[in-house]
Amino acid sequence: MVRGRVSRLSVRDVRFPTSLGGHGSDAMHTDPDYSAAYVIIETDAEDGLKGYGITFTLGKGTEVVVCAVNALAHHVLNKDLKDIVGDFRGFYRQLTSDGQLRWIGPEKGVVHLATAAVLNAVWDLWAKQEGKPLWKLLVDMDPRTLVSCIDFRYITDVLTEEDAYEILQKGQVGKKEREGHMLAHGYPAYTTSCAWLGYSDDTLKQMVLLKVALSDINWHRFKVKVGADVQDDMRRCRLIRDMIGPENTLMMDANQRWDVPEAVEWMSKLAEFKPLWIEEPTSPDDILGHAAISKALVPLGIGVATGEQCHNRVIFKQLLQANALQFLQIDSCRLGSVNENLSVLLMAKKFEIPVCPHAGGVGLCELVQHLIIFDYISVSASLENRMCEYVDHLHEHFKYPVKIRQASYMPPMDAGYSTEMKEESVKKHQYPDGEVWKKLLATQENQV
Amino acid sequence: MVRGRVSRLSVRDVRFPTSLGGHGSDAMHTDPDYSAAYVIIETDAEDGLKGYGITFTLGKGTEVVVCAVNALAHHVLNKDLKDIVGDFRGFYRQLTSDGQLRWIGPEKGVVHLATAAVLNAVWDLWAKQEGKPLWKLLVDMDPRTLVSCIDFRYITDVLTEEDAYEILQKGQVGKKEREGHMLAHGYPAYTTSCAWLGYSDDTLKQMVLLKVALSDINWHRFKVKVGADVQDDMRRCRLIRDMIGPENTLMMDANQRWDVPEAVEWMSKLAEFKPLWIEEPTSPDDILGHAAISKALVPLGIGVATGEQCHNRVIFKQLLQANALQFLQIDSCRLGSVNENLSVLLMAKKFEIPVCPHAGGVGLCELVQHLIIFDYISVSASLENRMCEYVDHLHEHFKYPVKIRQASYMPPMDAGYSTEMKEESVKKHQYPDGEVWKKLLATQENQV
Repeated sequence: MVRGRVSRLSVRDVRFPTSLGGHGSDAMHTDPDYSAAYVIIETDAEDGLKGYGITFTLGKGTEVVVCAVNALAHHVLNKDLKDIVGDFRGFYRQLTSDGQLRWIGPEKGVVHLATAAVLNAVWDLWAKQEGKPLWKLLVDMDPRTLVSCIDFRYITDVLTEEDAYEILQKGQVGKKEREGHMLAHGYPAYTTSCAWLGYSDDTLKQMVLLKVALSDINWHRFKVKVGADVQDDMRRCRLIRDMIGPENTLMMDANQRWDVPEAVEWMSKLAEFKPLWIEEPTSPDDILGHAAISKALVPLGIGVATGEQCHNRVIFKQLLQANALQFLQIDSCRLGSVNENLSVLLMAKKFEIPVCPHAGGVGLCELVQHLIIFDYISVSASLENRMCEYVDHLHEHFKYPVKIRQASYMPPMDAGYSTEMKEESVKKHQYPDGEVWKKLLATQENQV
Repeated sequence: MVRGRVSRLSVRDVRFPTSLGGHGSDAMHTDPDYSAAYVIIETDAEDGLKGYGITFTLGKGTEVVVCAVNALAHHVLNKDLKDIVGDFRGFYRQLTSDGQLRWIGPEKGVVHLATAAVLNAVWDLWAKQEGKPLWKLLVDMDPRTLVSCIDFRYITDVLTEEDAYEILQKGQVGKKEREGHMLAHGYPAYTTSCAWLGYSDDTLKQMVLLKVALSDINWHRFKVKVGADVQDDMRRCRLIRDMIGPENTLMMDANQRWDVPEAVEWMSKLAEFKPLWIEEPTSPDDILGHAAISKALVPLGIGVATGEQCHNRVIFKQLLQANALQFLQIDSCRLGSVNENLSVLLMAKKFEIPVCPHAGGVGLCELVQHLIIFDYISVSASLENRMCEYVDHLHEHFKYPVKIRQASYMPPMDAGYSTEMKEESVKKHQYPDGEVWKKLLATQENQV
């Protein structure tokens, strides 16, 4: 079924000027321009299908990721797609363990984001050639093939290939029913759109009102950004909790603002607003720090959530080993694409920790829905304590945008990984020569 | 004393074709071309002094680091040097916490290597303006100023500003004597040059012979690369141990080749050759893995060493908290320059773990000698179980190359951080348009 030799890999720098409206602002990222390094893979096959892959960035630095994609391109060009997916573990290893390139990673930061963009494009192309949405490609794949996509290096002390296979074998039971459930009801979501740190109290009130009373979506799980000023946080959290009432769920997100002792102290003050979790209380690299915070917050009934900036499976492995999180947040663009996310979903299953993916930005919702729907059908078989982040920005730029119904992600039905953007949007937002940026940069120049 | 406004920052891609001779090869990096992103900072001061900074790379990907340096440049340009070093913590934070750029790190991988190159250039310039070698600038600096260069974010659960100050205050006692000792005898070194994985047994024998019997340097500490094949390793280790005898020290380096259980098993087989340490047994991100290996190797009398790929102070903090290493190996170009290395030296002192810096590559010896000499004089006050790596490659390209005498680093006496390369060398090795690469790339093209 898989066909064609990769004849071209191109990459574009696409940026949306979201910082102008304060959208997406938090305690550490005050002025994000949601952006993407956008990879397109073409083959010599007659079907004319292309694979699209993105990795998410915040504006500046996208050109650095673009540069890293170009540094990886020679591993992909002139390869037969069937050789790539036929030994996907080997191909993953080749990309991530290049004897010279791995020094500037390994499997972290810029090169790993670039790896994600390239591999996301490969998965998109594979799914398109099979005529299936990615989640369905994964659900229908036999466990041996799934396992052959995963690089187990550095995680065998927690998850061996045999462990993974066994989990997937068990996941076959009841699969059809769970697929039916997804198609009928979708995967539960929560919203972050109402409470960015850059919003005024009035905007915040309006946004919550919009979500609760006036929306046909019927949101009942909300996340608020905290961490810049404790008095502000208390006022904003009280305001939201009052508006949503005690029956709805509230989560908090500090975006790495605190040191370990500070996190515990701060959250003690916000505990009265009954958050389900505190997300990213400290450095994403601090496994033992997260463990200490987790332990200290148990008496307050607050869990710790993290993952959007965990740079690879080795960090996730340790977070699980150390009881450092109660909610695990995978990201579709920071880890090494589907391949590495599969290993994390399986480790989470082994430790029975619920996965609640990170989304938002640009394209993250489109991508990660595939992974979490697969996770429910074939791995976790549970919806308890689980939900996927949702942010309603920038979906209009995608050819196959997410569909939300009754606060749930409805499974995408188009073939591929939902990664493809509208060519018109890409052209307009290309940096620095797209129409939108030409105008903005000219304005900035005039102001200087 | 500090003067001038930064008027220009330029960066060059300099590569040495070391892969042609198998120099520097190990179990994970089989064909390194030792390279550097080389930063030059100029000011408008009349003294005409320039700051030179490098970060080390293995060839491919240097262009990605160069791109990241350019992304950081706007934080440095048009700044007064006195404002930079007058609030060095703030400046460090500005570079590492840029609201948009931090997403593609934070403080890890490409952007952090770029940060190191830029800050190394700033330190070089500062030391030159003060007319002192960097180690002496640090030794003479009062503890409050030293502490003001450090960003304590994410490490205050282990080391607060007051802790750091106290350690440095205690380090004032006996400083003069220790400085005298360094000037007279230098800092102890060990050599890795004899046993790269790419060397044949004959080359290896020759190299060891050269070091032991024929060298006037009188080496007595040796490191061998292991990890690709256990039978090969046993043969090579036996060969070296036989040649150097039981009285000399042998270390082993696996360069991240193993998973945790594999590391323990493999080292049990190599224990008979009495290594002092096994270096980088597994993923540099695996704190708990290193802790497990450390614990398992205690009965065999083998310590664990790691650090050259630890990407920031948060990882070092946890390695110390978890008893995951017995020898801590700082690197002058992977961490955020002198600023972040200061925090690691101070944490190591607090945990009483000996620091044995990583060096080699290109320029790493030149730079790190300054840090470890300062460490001895002002922080650790001890030489017990301590030594600095030495590799005798590529020093001829530096304007102020290291001086080794009786297997010790002699303190550099020229002003600056010894980062400056000979302009002739840079020109010849610039990639891809330097003379050396033009020839090599033409040959490669002819072969295709």
